[in-house]
Amino acid sequence: MTQIVVADRGGGSRIVWKHRVMRCEIVAVGTELLLGQIVDTNSSWMGEHLAAAGIDSHFQTKVGDNHARIVSCLRIALERSDAVICCGGLGPTQDDITREAISEVMGVPLVRHGDIVTRIREMFVARGREMSENNARQADVPEGATIIPQVRGTAPGLVCPVQTPAGEKVIYAVPGVPYEMTEMMERIIIPDLMRRSGEVATIKSRVLRTWGIAESTLAERVAPRLDALAAPDAPPATIAFLASGMEGIKVRVTAKGADEASVLAVLDAEESELRGILGDLVFGVDDENMEVAVSKLLLARAATLGVAESVTGGLMASRLVSVAGASKWFRGGIVSYASEVKFDLLGVPEGPVVSAAAAVQMAKGVAERLGATIGLSVTGVAGPDTQDGQPVGTVFVGVSDGGTVFAEMLKMPGDRDRIRQFSTIGALDILRRHLLGIR
Amino acid sequence: MTQIVVADRGGGSRIVWKHRVMRCEIVAVGTELLLGQIVDTNSSWMGEHLAAAGIDSHFQTKVGDNHARIVSCLRIALERSDAVICCGGLGPTQDDITREAISEVMGVPLVRHGDIVTRIREMFVARGREMSENNARQADVPEGATIIPQVRGTAPGLVCPVQTPAGEKVIYAVPGVPYEMTEMMERIIIPDLMRRSGEVATIKSRVLRTWGIAESTLAERVAPRLDALAAPDAPPATIAFLASGMEGIKVRVTAKGADEASVLAVLDAEESELRGILGDLVFGVDDENMEVAVSKLLLARAATLGVAESVTGGLMASRLVSVAGASKWFRGGIVSYASEVKFDLLGVPEGPVVSAAAAVQMAKGVAERLGATIGLSVTGVAGPDTQDGQPVGTVFVGVSDGGTVFAEMLKMPGDRDRIRQFSTIGALDILRRHLLGIR
Repeated sequence: MTQIVVADRGGGSRIVWKHRVMRCEIVAVGTELLLGQIVDTNSSWMGEHLAAAGIDSHFQTKVGDNHARIVSCLRIALERSDAVICCGGLGPTQDDITREAISEVMGVPLVRHGDIVTRIREMFVARGREMSENNARQADVPEGATIIPQVRGTAPGLVCPVQTPAGEKVIYAVPGVPYEMTEMMERIIIPDLMRRSGEVATIKSRVLRTWGIAESTLAERVAPRLDALAAPDAPPATIAFLASGMEGIKVRVTAKGADEASVLAVLDAEESELRGILGDLVFGVDDENMEVAVSKLLLARAATLGVAESVTGGLMASRLVSVAGASKWFRGGIVSYASEVKFDLLGVPEGPVVSAAAAVQMAKGVAERLGATIGLSVTGVAGPDTQDGQPVGTVFVGVSDGGTVFAEMLKMPGDRDRIRQFSTIGALDILRRHLLGIR
Repeated sequence: MTQIVVADRGGGSRIVWKHRVMRCEIVAVGTELLLGQIVDTNSSWMGEHLAAAGIDSHFQTKVGDNHARIVSCLRIALERSDAVICCGGLGPTQDDITREAISEVMGVPLVRHGDIVTRIREMFVARGREMSENNARQADVPEGATIIPQVRGTAPGLVCPVQTPAGEKVIYAVPGVPYEMTEMMERIIIPDLMRRSGEVATIKSRVLRTWGIAESTLAERVAPRLDALAAPDAPPATIAFLASGMEGIKVRVTAKGADEASVLAVLDAEESELRGILGDLVFGVDDENMEVAVSKLLLARAATLGVAESVTGGLMASRLVSVAGASKWFRGGIVSYASEVKFDLLGVPEGPVVSAAAAVQMAKGVAERLGATIGLSVTGVAGPDTQDGQPVGTVFVGVSDGGTVFAEMLKMPGDRDRIRQFSTIGALDILRRHLLGIR
């Protein structure tokens, strides 16, 4: 396979592949999207994952729950692209009309599938509820379409072949519920698109997750590597950045090659280059978020953790329990929102509760109360008002680990919500560095 | 003003206004939008504000920094709409090519405006920086276009008349920087669109938030009211549904009238109709989410709350502290993830921890520990494995309020994350019903 790597003026490098590139548009259906009641994050997710798979997505359209307009969007999209992913409008209510619109574009009738009705009815029964009859609409399938079985919800997805003057094209229909959509994209649609493109090469991405410096600083540090990848004889890899709030700043490497082994070799080499540049700013790879990174270190030490939270109000605990197998190392948490709870339950001495001393005692107190090896605490000012003379965004993180106790101060930007999110990942990063011995 | 109300096949009723309704599309420009590196919140904001001004926005398109594709999008949009707002691509770099694309659609050359160059240069000087020459590109204006002066940044906006076979239409160009875009929308573009439409009416929406039944059941219950609104002499209102996860299912009423008073009268009447149908399933209006609803009831009783969480792992506490003024009634929480924490800190008797008895003692225990009037607890099975013989999705909610203690069992659908989210709003709804005396 031949390829040309060109520098992209967007900041990263871009690979122009010489074989046929599938063009796949996205049509997001829902009046609530047009009205701004829901922000269309589904299309963003799809665009990111299509790009990572080497599939072009040049247009993404939002359209309301209107039959004629959905049909028109699908026709325009089919004219200029090879495939269309239609997201949303597969539910049970009267304004879920994506199935009808696709069947009109295909020029075929809808056929109700009894086995799908049975499956949906069984799901309702399992929850102790009765299925209302309009749910049966979700079992309507355009003649000739293939069903993408649901594993997470009720409405199945669809793979709908469409005959056009330019040959057979395809419309995929997926539910608008994000966790149903992403599952179908990864399991069925992206592999199917790659197969249709005649793509025999393997494309894989790897994400290095970082925390601790600004995105612009990160980009500056990595810039020489971007330049190197733009050279004619560079490895077939691209690098992109994505600031992701509580998930840190992601550095995504995408590589392409004849087989999995060669692609993994390129990814390993690029990961090694980037780790050389970024050092211990990298806390995880791919789905390994900060909670997972911390959990691995705790497991390795056979240590348990308890958390005391004020400003983050339970956010840190809720992130930690989302880690699979958290019961092996997570004891629990105390949300000491009222100052008296800090004093009475955690033994914080009377005085300013946004302080290093309070953070240290919160960490010690929660470890004792919950019988945990290690205590981690967060106390700070999320605003809108200052507290204990500390400006908004001031956060103290306390760690208690046997004889070792310390606190660190962080300064967080943004509004209340962002201060809570950054405090959560920031506090966990301090624990991570402590467990690694690199603070 | 006369009007015709017709049934819409989209499920709600739709008002066909007899005066001219402007149709305004949005074209968001930027490859980073297609790649999912930035989520397009600009279009959502615009859609919301256009709708509030009574301007239809039936299509919203994202397109990359590619001249031919931007031109194509603008032409398609002009064919089916009266106006197009083109957002982004007005900056100084080489991939900011919106100006060039619009001038091609208009069939006119770009003309550089010396006064704009001077203004931009002065802005740089005022910040102690020198203007690089590529910034002068921001002073290029399609011949015949009107400038929207910048008050917050460098690139001016544009009002570009376009002659089409269907008469004169208009393309507005605004920067992609949100706070520059919103300022130009509110100051110039929305008033200009309303003037062009001859619109003098007022349009407002109200959202009723519900919890406790499936969306399909809700839709069936409200169906007769939808039918009533489709009648020729019905009030000028429409109804739409929106399942919103932890925010419940929203029922949105939109009304239009000659002035604010008449619109509010229609909204009040429809709210009353819907409350008659939905009763105490309605927990809040507009921005009043379940936490706010509970907080108001607690404040009215001058009661304080403490929460004990197992399956929700801190999520309930973190939602509660996000309510403004939570410190007046929220004491804090205990995340009793390890069973020993339930036994030791909350006084739960040894035995199955996913049970009504455990939920009741968790609620009693946390109220005592935190010195709260009321304790609320959640214990359950988020999966993937069953626990204490209970299937995944089984959740017990406990309430302790002085002498009154009780537990309720809920069955939740979905994966771990959704079970946690639904458990959170479900538990708070049980507390709400208790505080209202309607359980």
